[in-house]
Amino acid sequence: MTHHDLIKNLVQKTDSKILLIVMDGLGGIRTKDRPKTELELANIPNMNQLARESVCGRIMPVSYGITPGSGPAHFSLFGYNPTDDNIQIGRGVLEALGLDMQLQAGDVATRCNFATMDGNGLLTDRRAGRIPTEECVRLCEMLKKNIQKIDDVDVIIKAGEQYRFVVVFRGKNLDGHIDDTDPQVTGVKSLHAHPRSESSKRMAQIADKFIAQANQVLKGEPKANTILMRGFSALPHVPSMKDRYDLTAACVASYPLYRGVASVVGMDVLTTGMEIKDEFETLKAHWAKYDFFFLHVKKTDSYGEDGNPEGKIKIMEDVDRFIPMIRELNPDVIMITGDHSTPPPMKSHSWHPVPFLLHSKVCGIDDAVAFNESECTKGQLSNFPSYYIMELALANAGKLKKFGA
Amino acid sequence: MTHHDLIKNLVQKTDSKILLIVMDGLGGIRTKDRPKTELELANIPNMNQLARESVCGRIMPVSYGITPGSGPAHFSLFGYNPTDDNIQIGRGVLEALGLDMQLQAGDVATRCNFATMDGNGLLTDRRAGRIPTEECVRLCEMLKKNIQKIDDVDVIIKAGEQYRFVVVFRGKNLDGHIDDTDPQVTGVKSLHAHPRSESSKRMAQIADKFIAQANQVLKGEPKANTILMRGFSALPHVPSMKDRYDLTAACVASYPLYRGVASVVGMDVLTTGMEIKDEFETLKAHWAKYDFFFLHVKKTDSYGEDGNPEGKIKIMEDVDRFIPMIRELNPDVIMITGDHSTPPPMKSHSWHPVPFLLHSKVCGIDDAVAFNESECTKGQLSNFPSYYIMELALANAGKLKKFGA
Repeated sequence: MTHHDLIKNLVQKTDSKILLIVMDGLGGIRTKDRPKTELELANIPNMNQLARESVCGRIMPVSYGITPGSGPAHFSLFGYNPTDDNIQIGRGVLEALGLDMQLQAGDVATRCNFATMDGNGLLTDRRAGRIPTEECVRLCEMLKKNIQKIDDVDVIIKAGEQYRFVVVFRGKNLDGHIDDTDPQVTGVKSLHAHPRSESSKRMAQIADKFIAQANQVLKGEPKANTILMRGFSALPHVPSMKDRYDLTAACVASYPLYRGVASVVGMDVLTTGMEIKDEFETLKAHWAKYDFFFLHVKKTDSYGEDGNPEGKIKIMEDVDRFIPMIRELNPDVIMITGDHSTPPPMKSHSWHPVPFLLHSKVCGIDDAVAFNESECTKGQLSNFPSYYIMELALANAGKLKKFGA
Repeated sequence: MTHHDLIKNLVQKTDSKILLIVMDGLGGIRTKDRPKTELELANIPNMNQLARESVCGRIMPVSYGITPGSGPAHFSLFGYNPTDDNIQIGRGVLEALGLDMQLQAGDVATRCNFATMDGNGLLTDRRAGRIPTEECVRLCEMLKKNIQKIDDVDVIIKAGEQYRFVVVFRGKNLDGHIDDTDPQVTGVKSLHAHPRSESSKRMAQIADKFIAQANQVLKGEPKANTILMRGFSALPHVPSMKDRYDLTAACVASYPLYRGVASVVGMDVLTTGMEIKDEFETLKAHWAKYDFFFLHVKKTDSYGEDGNPEGKIKIMEDVDRFIPMIRELNPDVIMITGDHSTPPPMKSHSWHPVPFLLHSKVCGIDDAVAFNESECTKGQLSNFPSYYIMELALANAGKLKKFGA
């Protein structure tokens, strides 16, 4: 039997509750210059106490040595092996879902940048001088007014933050296997939409027409006089967490991408604010209504990417102050971890296994005495793939029956 | 190549001997109230000394978070992935094999209870007042005398302990995909044998006829005046340990289920007594004749299920006293572990990885200084699936050739 069937056959509904707190890019590394990781340096007494009452380990989003993007890393946390064929979800779809666009099966979505080109069509700024969001909204309104349809394909445009926006193409026989038009460097022309297969030729032609029309509309703009398209992708069918685990699941996340992933696996995406405090208040306000909660904290990753360990530590300490409030809610299972590591010395995502703790009445308490990389390595879970944490959570919540007699 | 082929191609016959000692439900957990596990509390100097001379780790019977029944957990110890389709073996077959019934391919076996019903056919006791075993033998003789055949299907009956017995149906085109007739509660009628597929309809009709005839035979009985049937199942084809590993294997187990599993994988099931001492004496008496021995101790699990940590500790200490005798036999490989965890605070099987040690001249000695959950976590094998221990044992016994040049 498939692993999927194994779990589905064992799942049972109970009224226990599971909470997953994800600090994005949580994991760090020791280097010669920085002999302690951010988690080792942070003042996080509440998480450390929780670790002493938990079972700990370290999780790998994909496999040994594989650095994941945020999409695959989150699918893995939700129990979906990100290398499965039906989990190959493009960034365009995730971004569209994160902007609360209602996608339909077969839609092709793309992330777009406003950009600047010179008189010869050579790119001079791939982000159009990071124009403010209001400017982005104005430009998107112009595009919307002028481009509603290309051939028989509907064009749906939505502004994002700063220079970013999303375009969704809706029509028959659209295939999203198309390369980015962003050349990743300036001083060259943007690329044509290149189809990766016979079946994506039509969509590539429509994308090229869209770019040509957009260039016309934006011709008079001083900065944002062209666009770049990335992450072409169609919405695949992914079984929901309700289907797989019989969970009513809710997402508390303030950033689009994470709301998007949660939406793909069928979570209710709750309205919340941008601050950590807002997110924990949203969690508390909806506590009675769901049996699984995913709470996402973004800025540990952002500071990691900036190479700013102090900033990352500060966010960890901010989150730590909400742990007592969480424990008062009395979840049957608490998991705290990250989607991947973002070590400040690397200023990027990395493959290093991420500290993980799971607390329940029957988790089994191990020898880890704090919540950080080295202590979690002493934990009884060892290193294991992130996509097993949901099964552990279900087991600890009494939601998995025995397999066989 | 499949994993199965990989191993089969590398196996070589030698005169080395492997001993696997399984303490059922061995693993435990620390909780807030009980900060040490039973293995951590037990006085087991011989196993602790052995751990210091062994490689240690913790094994998972199925996967993260999956709590196994005893059948799947034992198949895994013998190197059979219990989620493989051909390892889905029903309880009826296991119980029949455990009672030393000689099954043939295509036989359908069921576990039966004698039960009590009132004048309206409503169940009043699903175990017939737990009648003594002698009574069960007498009633089974009555059934045997009166029911030998239903249509063209042979009916083979064997008494078990107390109110339990086994019925095997032997004939053409029998399919065991049939639901239990035991409704699991009293105050209602027993259920009809419900076929789960078109192909099991015939077997379901025969089972219903058997129940009707049995009710006639038992009509005058004060307690055991009806029967309940569970675990309908046919004997599948499972490659033997001889086929897979070229091992002549023997089982020393006093409980039916474990003898049954051993028989399915082709072990000789040795006659032994109910006490731990009997089992170790049986092992010693047959030591010269086999190159693989499986010795099973039941009561660690029973006490775990009772929530009796002291009872569980006592059994561990009883087993410990036989370790010196084992070491005098000088096995090339000794493995000590459990099939799954049965933590007394949970009073049930659980998913927690099970302490494991393997001793050989070339095992590699690690930092685990005792045989328990936390020390085995420090062992060099880390957590891994139980179905790899046989390969480790073969390697340590010099029974696996090099792969490739």
